[in-house]
Parts: sequence; structure tokens; C-alpha cells
Amino acid sequence: MFFASDNGGPAHPSVIEAIAAANDGYTSAYGAEAGMDRVRAHLRDLFEAPEAAIYLVATGTAANSIALATLSNPWDTVFCTAMAHINEDECNAPEFYSGGAKLTLVGDEDAKMSPDALRAAIAAEESRGVHGPQRGPVSITNATEKGTVYSPGDIANLTGVARDFGLKTHLDGARFANALVSLGCSPAEMTWKAGIDAVSFGGTKNGLMGVEAVILFDADKAWEFELRRKRGAHLFSKHRFLSAQMEAYLQGDLWLDLAARANATCARLAEGLKAQGNVEFLHEPAANIIFARFPRALHKRLLDAGAQYYVWDGDAYHRDPDEPLTARLVCDWSIGAEGADAFLAALKG
Amino acid sequence: MFFASDNGGPAHPSVIEAIAAANDGYTSAYGAEAGMDRVRAHLRDLFEAPEAAIYLVATGTAANSIALATLSNPWDTVFCTAMAHINEDECNAPEFYSGGAKLTLVGDEDAKMSPDALRAAIAAEESRGVHGPQRGPVSITNATEKGTVYSPGDIANLTGVARDFGLKTHLDGARFANALVSLGCSPAEMTWKAGIDAVSFGGTKNGLMGVEAVILFDADKAWEFELRRKRGAHLFSKHRFLSAQMEAYLQGDLWLDLAARANATCARLAEGLKAQGNVEFLHEPAANIIFARFPRALHKRLLDAGAQYYVWDGDAYHRDPDEPLTARLVCDWSIGAEGADAFLAALKG
Amino acid sequence: MFFASDNGGPAHPSVIEAIAAANDGYTSAYGAEAGMDRVRAHLRDLFEAPEAAIYLVATGTAANSIALATLSNPWDTVFCTAMAHINEDECNAPEFYSGGAKLTLVGDEDAKMSPDALRAAIAAEESRGVHGPQRGPVSITNATEKGTVYSPGDIANLTGVARDFGLKTHLDGARFANALVSLGCSPAEMTWKAGIDAVSFGGTKNGLMGVEAVILFDADKAWEFELRRKRGAHLFSKHRFLSAQMEAYLQGDLWLDLAARANATCARLAEGLKAQGNVEFLHEPAANIIFARFPRALHKRLLDAGAQYYVWDGDAYHRDPDEPLTARLVCDWSIGAEGADAFLAALKG
Amino acid sequence: MFFASDNGGPAHPSVIEAIAAANDGYTSAYGAEAGMDRVRAHLRDLFEAPEAAIYLVATGTAANSIALATLSNPWDTVFCTAMAHINEDECNAPEFYSGGAKLTLVGDEDAKMSPDALRAAIAAEESRGVHGPQRGPVSITNATEKGTVYSPGDIANLTGVARDFGLKTHLDGARFANALVSLGCSPAEMTWKAGIDAVSFGGTKNGLMGVEAVILFDADKAWEFELRRKRGAHLFSKHRFLSAQMEAYLQGDLWLDLAARANATCARLAEGLKAQGNVEFLHEPAANIIFARFPRALHKRLLDAGAQYYVWDGDAYHRDPDEPLTARLVCDWSIGAEGADAFLAALKG
Repeated sequence: MFFASDNGGPAHPSVIEAIAAANDGYTSAYGAEAGMDRVRAHLRDLFEAPEAAIYLVATGTAANSIALATLSNPWDTVFCTAMAHINEDECNAPEFYSGGAKLTLVGDEDAKMSPDALRAAIAAEESRGVHGPQRGPVSITNATEKGTVYSPGDIANLTGVARDFGLKTHLDGARFANALVSLGCSPAEMTWKAGIDAVSFGGTKNGLMGVEAVILFDADKAWEFELRRKRGAHLFSKHRFLSAQMEAYLQGDLWLDLAARANATCARLAEGLKAQGNVEFLHEPAANIIFARFPRALHKRLLDAGAQYYVWDGDAYHRDPDEPLTARLVCDWSIGAEGADAFLAALKG
Repeated sequence: MFFASDNGGPAHPSVIEAIAAANDGYTSAYGAEAGMDRVRAHLRDLFEAPEAAIYLVATGTAANSIALATLSNPWDTVFCTAMAHINEDECNAPEFYSGGAKLTLVGDEDAKMSPDALRAAIAAEESRGVHGPQRGPVSITNATEKGTVYSPGDIANLTGVARDFGLKTHLDGARFANALVSLGCSPAEMTWKAGIDAVSFGGTKNGLMGVEAVILFDADKAWEFELRRKRGAHLFSKHRFLSAQMEAYLQGDLWLDLAARANATCARLAEGLKAQGNVEFLHEPAANIIFARFPRALHKRLLDAGAQYYVWDGDAYHRDPDEPLTARLVCDWSIGAEGADAFLAALKG
Repeated sequence: MFFASDNGGPAHPSVIEAIAAANDGYTSAYGAEAGMDRVRAHLRDLFEAPEAAIYLVATGTAANSIALATLSNPWDTVFCTAMAHINEDECNAPEFYSGGAKLTLVGDEDAKMSPDALRAAIAAEESRGVHGPQRGPVSITNATEKGTVYSPGDIANLTGVARDFGLKTHLDGARFANALVSLGCSPAEMTWKAGIDAVSFGGTKNGLMGVEAVILFDADKAWEFELRRKRGAHLFSKHRFLSAQMEAYLQGDLWLDLAARANATCARLAEGLKAQGNVEFLHEPAANIIFARFPRALHKRLLDAGAQYYVWDGDAYHRDPDEPLTARLVCDWSIGAEGADAFLAALKG
Repeated sequence: MFFASDNGGPAHPSVIEAIAAANDGYTSAYGAEAGMDRVRAHLRDLFEAPEAAIYLVATGTAANSIALATLSNPWDTVFCTAMAHINEDECNAPEFYSGGAKLTLVGDEDAKMSPDALRAAIAAEESRGVHGPQRGPVSITNATEKGTVYSPGDIANLTGVARDFGLKTHLDGARFANALVSLGCSPAEMTWKAGIDAVSFGGTKNGLMGVEAVILFDADKAWEFELRRKRGAHLFSKHRFLSAQMEAYLQGDLWLDLAARANATCARLAEGLKAQGNVEFLHEPAANIIFARFPRALHKRLLDAGAQYYVWDGDAYHRDPDEPLTARLVCDWSIGAEGADAFLAALKG
């Protein structure tokens, strides 16, 4: 009953097999291996973007920070939501990589950035000339940190606002596959066709050991990205072990299959929780994450049964002991129906 | 009728005289001149802080940024209000000088940071361990950017919250003198006795050409500050022209006299505006700044009469033309009663 | 016949096996897995340093840059040799991670930093006060980038100079094992017993997929290191796959065995080259790297036979075609006697 | 007898007068005052560069650091000599402003960068691809830190090498006027006609209180420079006091007159020292600085007579007491023939 994170589960066995298969003889280092050529071709094909620049790094924070730094200047401000991973969970990595850019927090609805709030936030930087931060890129996360999903139309609305001001857009796709499966659209529809300029295409949370791709649809800054990656110490010498993971991930649409499993587990879990009656959902789950508020007695029952998850109320210990608490339940690809059922059974006691 | 800024007025004549007097023969460079020794002694005496480390720089942004960088780590977040100069008007200088620290915006009441909001903002960084930004210093501005003033009690409430979490505090005193005159307290009471660790003691907006002092009540980081100042290119070789300004400023309490003039002008102007009837005050003026909203016809009349000030509604041109607009009226030390009266006369038409 | 780099060879099979074994069920992320506890204990034991702070990252540049940033201030200069990896091959990563520290290049003898040159270089920063860069840590590489090796006595001589000036010392051990095997001493003797404060303990060039440990003998800055690692985007969520690699590496002294193989291959190759007669050694090989200069005809013969290595004369194409060229020959752990013999056979034609 | 620095002397009286004259009424802040328009026009005319972007800052380190940051990327290396002010005397400000670029030290002859050494240094970064620092701008100082002077031909030789590699060039003109007077050429001939892209046009060491102009012959990066200046806290609110100084400096060629005085004093001093017989010159003085080595007894005699200057041997106290010591003698514009004669008289005893 592990629902703490999609970082705590295993890699898919075929990823390990791919690594073992790649461990064969001598090859060029630093991304010049043939496997990277195949990954690049596959991703360009998948995204219908034959000119895109494509790179691999090993952490999502690296993907986001280097991508955003490449899209921004140190005197810019990046527009994102308050709950964005780049704001809350990267220990100032975006500020570090960009050389001191800042983040402007934009209002959201259901964890999705609001186009009106974005327009207002950008406009608010309108009149200060050289004194204020300059307007930088817009970054959104899909699926969001709260498990909701932007549709291509939602994204186009936001990128349209950005484009009105000449701003670039970045999509943090740590859970790209979960969003895509939820939407049933194509990778291109969820990204460049909706106006996105750069994508962090996550793999680690969806069955890889640790690989994320960065996709720059405009390759103009490809060399700058390469330099930023190297300067950030994120260019792997034995890069073949990154490309091997990504190749396995794309092979036979494994990535979509794993996300479909995670989303299905999540839907099953949500259905069971709703049937429970005394569970309140903070957001309607659309991907593989649930934020559910329920009485403390139920939490105790779950924890006693060995369930693992995070209680998401920062001030839980200062609150009225009669108030319910919020569980963040993250469904890893590997959990499956049995995992959800075990959790629901424990909940029922 | 110049109410655009206290940056657009002249220096006090005695400041120019002091510069001319300092322009005599040869002296040590880089702050080793005798005049700096006198400034340091005078400020230590004034602040009742015999151990304080005291430095001069030429811009308020330098004072704030270097002081905050000295109090923080690159992975920290600095707590300030949304309208803080460090957030809105320094083009990411705090982020630059700190090496990538970020700012967390804290709610305010009447442009003054709310202790409850501060406590909540600090608490919100509680549970992320290495992932979230770390808690850094708290920075407030007195007088505030909106012309309101924190009392020593207000300040103590905030520094008390900071101290509960072991955080340092910085006071942006770009208009330190205006606040002090308004409060009628001592410099020590407004700063270290109320729990402040470091002060940007402004002079440029109050009759100097361009000098601000930074006062570190705890001198432990004095050498670090000196290195940060030099590395930021803010150590002046002919430093005697900074210390001469500051010496003239402190001499015979000129600084208090100039602030008293500015505040009196502001009070006179506020009184006249209130008498006008159709003027709404966004804040009750307590120092030398007024934010007053009044009908567009009055703005036109003022502008036609040659009044200079900023209209502070970012979206003025997108709004209903019947809506009133907000004027920011800043009273320089040099304007005097005649200036206020001229403005009021123009307003009446 | 792959002698291009110890980055181009395979991981040892037991490393892959360890990864597969670690891919089992659910675990804490971000280094809190039990495997990391075992790695920490093993390395503390190995280094006879029960208090040392120990962290894993995935690239050598990350290990070096984060370790050096932790030991230095942004206004410092780091003392290293001109051929140091941190100077030549990290695309300004040390400058990036340190927030703008610089490197002072110190003279060497046989690619090893000269104590006299170090003393002179440190002394040369003596008299500039706040104006010059401040003295920061000393960084050396063992085995060196040229394949020579510092003895514990050599290291103690350098750290003694550093200590005379109160400076910390860092050892870039990208090829730590190759040096240790060559010297026949203990890890402690080559590091803290010789005065070293922090070590990049390499694994990637010696049979791992991509893991390096950083060892801080003084744990005072452990938390700062953790923050710098996270901020640099080098904290892995599925960290178990790093600790699994390192555990396999340490298990049964595999790391020493692999380095012994590489060094033996190198010695065999060196012997054969010397026997050749017309090969000049730039340095006497002591680890797993040879810099050998020989006529172009021999290079052609080797290349025609499929040998892979770098020609190390930057201006090779601008030089007299009759001049010999220098081959850098790096012996991976996996090459073995047959690899060396094949190269020598190809050389003989 | 003050020969310690051209930072320790007074400003020219007309500079103080210009400041007093500028202290009149209200004006736009932040460089929008009419005086700046006049300065810009005057400098464009003087440099025969009608399109140049021109900015004022208050310190030479700011001028150099912001100019170089504008010309470079954080992953670049800047080519300069070992004795360059940017290397020795700016406490890592260039590294700070550039976001972590490094400096590559290029060999010199008589304190002037050698074109051959420059070509070799640039070429040495040739073959490392993404791994090594990237080639950034070349920065030279005229007059040099040792008092020698590059001719336009010397400069053209260096910029020619830079241009062969597509690199930009910066001239640190802290003593621009002294070099120009020495050469008898035009500002354009010493700069853009010789291939220079950006100039720090010094004033502080030549009779101003504290103003330097930065001249970008290619205005493409003007806005970036403005943002970097603001972000560095070097945009003055009461900027009129900077432009007033520069206007006085240019008025009636005061700047050339002051430099001519300084150079003449230096020439008179040099002649007298040569006549002394036991004085060795490290460089033939061409501007306003002399490096002269002479017996300790003479130093004692001078110091006893009240002469002020720096002894330039870093290790003076560790040396053989019979060795002569080197005096750095800097001639301020204000010293005049009497100052030189007094020094020479004291030397004779």
C-alpha cells in the first residue's frame, strides 16, 4: 500500500533489461552514442517535430531548470502557479540556473493557471521599465501537481496570452504521460500545436530509473542548452545508460501503457473512496494523484494497516483534532488494481 | 509642482558645500579617509550601537541587495511584501546579489507586513526539508512604499515572529528619516531595540546626492559585507565624497530637519486634498507620500497647470474613462508649503 | 582497441545486477533508502572516518563543483593546476556552483602541483585586501589528468602549505582507485591523514554506470552540501539506483580489483610501447593513462587497424607534418591484457 | 608628495562647480535628465560614433564588469593579462557580473598583451567542444596597469586576432586619457578604428569624483546593458550628478588637459629618477605611472621626508634586505612639477 510518491516505486523490468543490453562494449560518451540518435529520431517522430532539439538529463529539476534558464534572462520573472514544482520543490534551482531570475506566482483554478490571472500578472509588470523584473517565460505543469489536467484548449488559452506579450512557454511534463493518457490526444496536440515552446518530458515518475527528456521545438538555442547542461554538471559521460532507458520507455508505447496503468489504479481508488461517503476530494482526479480529505480515524486505520502516503496539511499538528486531514495519494504505475483494492479494504477496516 | 519623486529634487546646499570642502588635497582611498571614521562614530552614537559595522554605498538598491545577501544564503527565500522595493523596483538585484535567493510575498495591512501573514508564510515552508526554499531573512520598509509607517511596536511584532524561527531581519530605510520624524522615536527604538539586525539608512531621497549607509548591528559579517560591496563594484575609490555627504547629512541633525520639512509639506497637502472633498486616500499619509484617487478632470487640470506626478494605476488606459485615477504624490524636502499650496491651488482651478 | 576514455567502456556486470536487485518494490526516495545507509557505513569504515558526511551524485563534475562550492566563497579563488579537470573540462561548472569564484592556476611538475608554486601563488594574493580575490581552497587530482600519482607525502606537502594559510583542500578522485592501487596505501592515508578535507570519490570511470561519492571529513557543512546538491538538481528521487551501484562497487573490493586491472593493462601497454623504441613518454605512467608521442606513420597504422584514442596536440593540423604526435591512451578496467596486446600488435604492423 | 594613487587626489574644481550648478530644481531621475543627452551627444561626437550606446556608472569596476558581462556568456572565458585590473583588483566582480565566466590569463610583453600569446591562448580552447570554457571577449587596458601604452597598431593587432575567432574586444580605459595624450591620436583611432567593441572610458582617476562612461560601439546590446546596470544597483536616481561631472570633464577638453598634466609630471619625475643613476625602471613610463626599483636607503629617505607611495614587491619583507625595492609612483593630475621636484629633492636628500 505505497501511495507516497511515484518516485518510490520500481523501474519497469524492460528498463533494467535495456540497461543491461546497453552495457556492451565500447561506445562514444556524452550523448554521441547511437542509442541517442534513435531516441532523438523517435521523439521527433512522436512529437511530429522533425527539427526539435532533444536532450536527456537524469532529474526533473534539471530538465525544468535548464530549460527555463535557456528560455529566460537573469533579469526576468517566470510566471507559474504557487504550487508549481519549480516554486515549491526545487530549492531555488530555477533561480540558480537562470542566474537570478525570479518567479511570479499566478492564480489558478483547480491547480491550473488561470488565463485571466496570467494576463493580469503579465500586465502588472507593464510600467516599470528598467526598474522592474522583465517579463520572462510562462511555465505550467501537466498533469498538475494536484492531479488535474490541462486540455490542449486550456494550454492554448494560456500560450495565447503569453504570445500576446511575446513570451515563451514551458511545460513541466514530469507526469506528461499521465496527462496525455487522460486526454487521449497526441503529444503534438498537447505541446507545440497548443503553443508550447519547450517541454520537460518526464520518465522517472513513470517507470524509468532516472531520465527526463527536454524538447526544444525551436532549436535555435540548442547549443546554449548543451552548454548549460554541461555547466550544470548534467551531461553524463556514460550517457548510453540514459538513452537506453528512454529507448525502452518509448519502445512499443511502454510509456503510455505505464501511465494508463497508473491512471486506472487512480480511477479505481477514487471510485472506491467516493463510495466510502465521508471522503472529500480537493480536486477531481484526472491523472494519477488524489487529494482526499477524510476523518482522522480513517487515517489511523490506514496507517495501522501499513498504508504509506503523505498527509498534506502543513499545519496538521496545530489544528483542531476533530478536523479531517488531507491525504495525497499518488499511484505509481506498478501498484495495480490489487494495490488500490488493498487500500480500500484497509479503509473500510 | 514636482511631486513625481524624492529622487528628482536637489541635494541640500550644505551637502554640496561639504563635497567642495572635502575636495582638498590627498587622502586615503576606499573608505580609509578620516571622514569615514567620523561618520562611523556619529552613526554608532546616533544608533546607540558602539559595535555596529557601518558602510556607505551610493544607491538604495545596493544597500538593500548587499545587506540582504549578507544575511541570506542562495537557497533561502526572503520574506517581504508585494510592494516592497526589493520586489518591484530593483530588477532582480536581490536575486543577483544573493546568488539566486527568492522572495516570498507576505500579506500586508495598509502596506505594512502583517505578523500573522508572516507567521503563516514562514510556517508554509515548514515541511519540505531539502526540497523547498529555506527560510531566509525578513525585510520590511519604513516608511513603507505607500507612505505608511511601522511603529516600533509594529516592528517588534514582526521581528518577534522572525525570531521565533531564528530568522534575521532587515529594514529598508530609504525613507528612514521620514518614518522617524513621523514616529518621534529614536533610531535605536526603530531598529535594534525593536529587533532589527540590519538597516539600509537612506540619504538620497532626503537631500543627499547619492549616499546610503548600511548598518549591521551584529558586526560578525562585516568583512563579508565588505567583500560583497567590492565584488558588486560599489566600493568607491574617492570614497571621501560619500562620507562628506553623510557627514553633512548628520551634522546638526540636518537629516531630521529635511525629513520634517518633507513630512510637513505632505501633511499640508493631505489636509488640502481632504478639504477638496472628492479625493479618496488609499492610505492615511504618515510620512512624505500620498496615494490619492480623484476624478480625471482634476488630473487634467493639474497636468495642464504643470503638476508632475505619477498616475499609479497600471491599467489606467484600459479602464472605464469615468473611473477616478490614483496619483502618487511624493513630497521632496525642498518643496515646502508653497509647493503644496501651488498644487492645491491648481487643483481648485 | 578502445583507448579513448575510461568513459566509453561498460559497467561491471555486478553493477547491473545490483541495479536489477535494487529494483524491487517500494522504498524511500531521495537517499533515505536503506542501501544508502549501508554505503555510508561502508565508506566511513573504508576511510576510517566515522564522522564523515557522505553523499552520492551521478557525475564527476557535480562531485567536484558542489564539493568546491561548499568549501569556498564566491569571492575566493581556488588553487589548481592548469590541466585540472575543474579548469579544462567542466565548462565553468566550478564558477557556476560557487557563484563566481575563480581559479588560480598553479605550476606543476609532472602534472602534480608543486608545493613551492602553490606557496608562491597563495602568497601572491597576500597584499590586496578587499580588492583581490580571497584565498580559497586548494584542489588537486589523484591520479592526475596525465596519469601520474601523488604519494601521501606529496599530498601532505601541499596540504601543509594550504594549512599554513588556513585553506581547505579538495581531492578530485575521478581516478581515486587507480591512484590508490598504484600507491598501495589506504584511503585514509591518501586523504585525511595527508590533510585532505573533501574528496570526490569516483566510480564512473572505474566500472560504474554513473556514481561518484563526495566525502566531507568535516561534517560541519553537510547540510549546506545537501542544499547545494538539491539546488543543483543533483538529488536523485530514485536514489536507490545510485546507492546500489556504489554498494556493488565497494562489495568485495570490486573497486580495487577493477582499478588493478586497468593499471595492469596500462603497465603492459607502457612496457610494449617502450620496447617499440621510437615512442616518447610525456610522463612516466603510474595509473591507467599514457601520454605517448610517436611518428605519424605509427598513428596511421593504428588507426587503420581500428585503434581508438585521442591525439592530444591541439594544433596537430597546423604543425610540421614530420613532427610526431601525442596519443592519450586510457585503459578502461575492461580492456585487459588482450586489448593491450592487440594495440601493440597493430603498432608493430 | 603623494604618489600612492590617482584615486587619492582631488577632483578638478570645475567638476565641483558643475555639480553645484546641476543642483538646481527638479529634473527627471535615472539618466533621463537633459545633461545626459548632452553627454551622450558629446561622447558620440568625440568618438565619431553617432550610433554608440553610452552609459555612466560611478566606479571603474562597474564599468568593466557590466561591459564584459554584456559581451560574454556565463560559460565563456575572457582573455586578459595577469596584471589586468579585472583579474587582480576587482574581487571577482567580472565573474559575479557575468554569472560565472572565467578569465584566461594571456602572456604580455612590457605589460601589453602579446598577439601571439593571445592567438595561442584562444587556440588552446579549440578542441574541447562543450566540455571546455567557450571563447569569450578579449579585454585589454590602455594605459596599462604598469604605465605602458598600446598604440592603435598594437590594439589592431590584438583585435585582429580576436576577430579571426569571432570574438569581441573590450578596452579598460581607466586611464584612457593618459594613453591618448601619450599617443597623440584620436579617441576613435584608439578604439573602434582599431577594432575595439566596448570601452570603459575612465574619469575618476583623472579628476572626477566618481564617473566612468561605458561606450558600446554596437548598440545592439544597449538594453541588456541597461538591465545589467540596474540589476547591479548601478543606476543612479540622482543621475544628474554623474552627467554633470562628465559634462565638465569633456568641456573644453578638460580631460585631455588633466591627463597631459599627469603625464608631464610623470615624465619630469622619470627624468629626475634616471638622472639619479641607481634607479632601475621596470617599464619605460609612457603615461602617468612609474615602476622604479632602487635601494632601500633611498626608500627610507623618501618615507622620512613624507613621500607616499606603494612598495610593489609582495614579498618585500621576506627578501634579502640588501635587495632594492620597487616603488609604484602614480602621478595624479594635481601634483604638478613642484610635486615631482619635491620628490626628487627628497630622494637626493
